[in-house]
Amino acid sequence: MTDIERAVTNSLTFYEKLNDSQKRTIADNAILKRLKQGYNVHSSSEECTGLIIVRSGELRVYMLSEDGREITLYRLFENDVCVLSASCVIESITFDVFIDAEEDSEIIIVNSGALNEIVSDNIYAECFMLKKATERFSEVMWVMQQILFFKADRRVAIFLIDEMNKTKSAMLNITHDKIARYIGSAREVVSRILKYFEREKIVKIHRGGLEVIDKTALMKLI
Amino acid sequence: MTDIERAVTNSLTFYEKLNDSQKRTIADNAILKRLKQGYNVHSSSEECTGLIIVRSGELRVYMLSEDGREITLYRLFENDVCVLSASCVIESITFDVFIDAEEDSEIIIVNSGALNEIVSDNIYAECFMLKKATERFSEVMWVMQQILFFKADRRVAIFLIDEMNKTKSAMLNITHDKIARYIGSAREVVSRILKYFEREKIVKIHRGGLEVIDKTALMKLI
Repeated sequence: MTDIERAVTNSLTFYEKLNDSQKRTIADNAILKRLKQGYNVHSSSEECTGLIIVRSGELRVYMLSEDGREITLYRLFENDVCVLSASCVIESITFDVFIDAEEDSEIIIVNSGALNEIVSDNIYAECFMLKKATERFSEVMWVMQQILFFKADRRVAIFLIDEMNKTKSAMLNITHDKIARYIGSAREVVSRILKYFEREKIVKIHRGGLEVIDKTALMKLI
Repeated sequence: MTDIERAVTNSLTFYEKLNDSQKRTIADNAILKRLKQGYNVHSSSEECTGLIIVRSGELRVYMLSEDGREITLYRLFENDVCVLSASCVIESITFDVFIDAEEDSEIIIVNSGALNEIVSDNIYAECFMLKKATERFSEVMWVMQQILFFKADRRVAIFLIDEMNKTKSAMLNITHDKIARYIGSAREVVSRILKYFEREKIVKIHRGGLEVIDKTALMKLI
């Protein structure tokens, strides 16, 4: 079994329900792709990219307005599967997203043509795709609630705590601009909030990032 | 066959894939409910209501913030099926919504306990639920894009055109307040935009509603 086949069998839980010919179709149409940081791997104007399995690194899925504003919907990490990049396969998905590599990443792409063939034949494959889409629905609703209903300081606090949990460190190497993009706000707003956090001795701002020095105070804000 | 059974077999396309005992379970756990206009049929604090099939009338599905702000996600009309009111049945749905009757309505509710039993046994039923959820995902993404990216005048124009198409009339009996709630804006903003539309001879405002007098001009705004 090749590396790609192993990743596919592990991540696509419908794999065992496929017949031999369908298994071969998947294996023959899965490719490994190495992405440089910042690379745009999927955009709505493009062809339907296919299903993405992340092997390493980090991808960011976002919406883009006509005037270039971005809203991050969610991020993808090792072993995560993304089906929104194969929206042509699921007819109930009628919107499109953009996906960038946030770090140097390795991904497996299962070609949407092959996927389409299998999904239309196999209810387990279809169900898998829909389940993955529905999980993302929940994440997007969470983002939407944050943007619409929470004050920006709360959103920054939630972001910083998430980030600390993810990196297991209080030292966060992330620019104000990047935080603003993640939480769907403006850089100026984020800078203002972080300055306020600094005055309150919650964080210490340094070049290219910040350190959380009072997590308890941060937790109280959310 | 009773009226309820007929509605259930027509709307739930997985019905024919059920065995006799499962069919009986559905029929035994579907009830007809008459709702008065304004009645809240589902809210996130409540128990999991179940799957809703609209027989007549109109329901509105929305999010509610802690301070009482509402964002309409979508509306349900005759024969529409709503699964977000049965989110406990689909584990990938981790958010909750509110549902009100916008008019006097008749709905069928399939109890979530019975539904759960069937969904965990039958892949077609599971797939149906996920497909319906994913369709709503697409609608919600559209709403989100409108709120985040479009200017309010464009949102009002889109709403008025939708409403004209729906009612097949240029005379719309809808208050500014209601329009504001539908498009996720403030009443003052909507009133200002409608006044501007009136100055431009696009609409004529009257008590409790408005008339679209220049649809072409409205179409140009979207």
